[in-house]
Amino acid sequence: MTDNSSPTAASRRSFLRTAAFAGAGLATGAAQAQTPKPDPAITEVPDWTRYLGPGVQNAPYGSPSKFEKHIVRQDVEWLTASRESSVNFTPLHALDGVITPSGLCFERHHSGVAEVDPAKHRLMIHGLVDKSLVFTMEDLKRFPGRINHAYFLECAANSGMEWRGAQLNGCQFTHGMIHNVWYHGLPLKTLLDEAGVKPKGKWLLAEGADSAAMTRSIPMEKALKDCMIAWGMNGEALRPEQGYPLRLVVPGWEGNMWVKWLRRLEVGDEPWEQREETSKYTDLLADGRARRFTWIMDAKSVVTSPSPQAPLVQKGPNVITGIAWSGRGRMQRIDVTIDGGKNWTTARLDGPNMPLSMVRFYLDFDWDGREMLIQSRAMDETGYVQPTKEELRKVRGVNSIYHNNGIQTWLVRSNGETENVEIS
Amino acid sequence: MTDNSSPTAASRRSFLRTAAFAGAGLATGAAQAQTPKPDPAITEVPDWTRYLGPGVQNAPYGSPSKFEKHIVRQDVEWLTASRESSVNFTPLHALDGVITPSGLCFERHHSGVAEVDPAKHRLMIHGLVDKSLVFTMEDLKRFPGRINHAYFLECAANSGMEWRGAQLNGCQFTHGMIHNVWYHGLPLKTLLDEAGVKPKGKWLLAEGADSAAMTRSIPMEKALKDCMIAWGMNGEALRPEQGYPLRLVVPGWEGNMWVKWLRRLEVGDEPWEQREETSKYTDLLADGRARRFTWIMDAKSVVTSPSPQAPLVQKGPNVITGIAWSGRGRMQRIDVTIDGGKNWTTARLDGPNMPLSMVRFYLDFDWDGREMLIQSRAMDETGYVQPTKEELRKVRGVNSIYHNNGIQTWLVRSNGETENVEIS
Repeated sequence: MTDNSSPTAASRRSFLRTAAFAGAGLATGAAQAQTPKPDPAITEVPDWTRYLGPGVQNAPYGSPSKFEKHIVRQDVEWLTASRESSVNFTPLHALDGVITPSGLCFERHHSGVAEVDPAKHRLMIHGLVDKSLVFTMEDLKRFPGRINHAYFLECAANSGMEWRGAQLNGCQFTHGMIHNVWYHGLPLKTLLDEAGVKPKGKWLLAEGADSAAMTRSIPMEKALKDCMIAWGMNGEALRPEQGYPLRLVVPGWEGNMWVKWLRRLEVGDEPWEQREETSKYTDLLADGRARRFTWIMDAKSVVTSPSPQAPLVQKGPNVITGIAWSGRGRMQRIDVTIDGGKNWTTARLDGPNMPLSMVRFYLDFDWDGREMLIQSRAMDETGYVQPTKEELRKVRGVNSIYHNNGIQTWLVRSNGETENVEIS
Repeated sequence: MTDNSSPTAASRRSFLRTAAFAGAGLATGAAQAQTPKPDPAITEVPDWTRYLGPGVQNAPYGSPSKFEKHIVRQDVEWLTASRESSVNFTPLHALDGVITPSGLCFERHHSGVAEVDPAKHRLMIHGLVDKSLVFTMEDLKRFPGRINHAYFLECAANSGMEWRGAQLNGCQFTHGMIHNVWYHGLPLKTLLDEAGVKPKGKWLLAEGADSAAMTRSIPMEKALKDCMIAWGMNGEALRPEQGYPLRLVVPGWEGNMWVKWLRRLEVGDEPWEQREETSKYTDLLADGRARRFTWIMDAKSVVTSPSPQAPLVQKGPNVITGIAWSGRGRMQRIDVTIDGGKNWTTARLDGPNMPLSMVRFYLDFDWDGREMLIQSRAMDETGYVQPTKEELRKVRGVNSIYHNNGIQTWLVRSNGETENVEIS
């Protein structure tokens, strides 16, 4: 694989042939052995070059091109039967860089989208504090110490359908319960300090204003370390489906804890044992016991292209790209294999490598048309290496739907079509 | 101003009173001297907490909350009379962080929006090269060496209406011809190397596929240094109004050169002297001569809040925030004054500080209700300091509409209302 990991002279030559063929109608510098059919995209002047286009008045808030209308969040019918438990998936196969566009961030609701009027929204902090506080949105925005951070949010159930074998054909569905977004707001510590947490206050309950009244218990140590109260994402206000006007940000921990439409923070001396941390979001092991409070999302990665929704279209130079993340810190290294794990090559990272935030990796290679088994394997700065699915199952069984960070395999057939498979 | 530059004990106390009042209906820890009227936002259970919200099926591509519908790009009627010359403005006053949401990036078109079908789009490289090349979009996406960068794009005419005095009441209109976006694509150098630039090839002509056939000459040195061919922005495909499917990225240089709907790159031995670099985008001086090829956007900053569209609403703790950028490198420091320049305080930067990309600054302060003259002043890593408008006019006169990077003044009245003013 070493020969394929960078643009070699051979791959450049093969690319040039392709490009020259595509452009033969205008290629002034190169004589062609055969006269190819003229490319109408070159010989004909398109309408958009002939006629005035629409002016600015049509799009006070812009949208993607009509040619991109297939790039949307998608649901899986049997997973979203009701509004009490609805989910859709980020189209990871079509994205690049590390920041997820707000309109494409996956959704997971326990009672649908609460459409909150910010003028009527309050955040209360109470319980084991020196002074109970209630904030309007304006109060929060005037508060000293505003910060900006990019963090990934992964649902604990991401890749959950894959515990018992390869199920869904596309990284949008196998890995799309994740997004990576800039947050604008305050350190949670700032508000807790303002209220004055009493010495006995070791836990925090976060509650949402949706009709599920989503509630999770968070250890005070984490709350004071790096959690945020955010009203902005990706430069603008939070989107309704991401908790507008206020959400909790719990960097590196499972998405269910990032309570949306945040209205209440109660300080207590022990966890509350709410539904979402007992009957749900615990990991049932093979022997019937359940792991609970498994908050941290361990290192994970996935090749987003090629993938079932982004097959290869021709031989020669091609780009393998994907994303990686870890709830334990910064990403150290991502390795990629095209032969099912016999040989690994370290991928190139490009773009920001921020702790608890997605990174983007690339591996440029030359495809000879052979069938491939493509995988990526993440290693974070703690030295933790993403396990295989088999390694995970040996420890965790197959009862759980949560915390599946196993290595994903894509089979690329010789015609370029790509499938979700498992290899042992 | 020293006392106001950080949250002092006094400011915190004043904040607490406010918060305690707002929350008095539920404030269990504090006795109130007077019984305030109960806050209905606390005593009444809102509908969004009572009833199931909509499920995920409603928004395959999401949109902002209905309560944010006033946060849009806006035009100025007399500036956008025709589609041949249309412009709208980024709502900077409502944004945070450093990345502009794609749907809010200002637009400037010379022939409306070209609605290009990517399957029929080609990029040609020709002229003084060893081998002419034509690329499909697929060719480009398979090419080795893809990169990701965040850069600001500022129209040369940004703040242009202010040359002769304070005109427009809102930073959206005075400074909103700027955005700061992640780009995904290839270094332009990679493609030029593939074509093989001949020794005489010192200039590059970039041409768009819109019906204006926008064309600009770019020195080869810049083209090879850091320009990009980008098909992606902020994680997804370019938006139509930003050049979908392909645009040129010319970091730190005026926006007009970032040719959208890019279809042709011609290598030559001298500039082409096209309309957009002779009759337009040159700076007419007082003596009738014109500066031309004034490509670099010098260091500039603006306070985005408070500002005319984001007035102060009450005394006590408040946050001054704004953005700064420089076409010559990284931002070094931003100073803020609230007394029209008598005293300056260095603002706190938060979020990424990347070269040729916006930075976000904050100054937390305590407002006593006095009238203020708020300004910000940027200094980049070259030591260049943003000038006053008067300093600029002494050198440049008032004939030009381009390259006005003078210091902006906002007058905050004692009732919080904020106006665009000039002080001498």
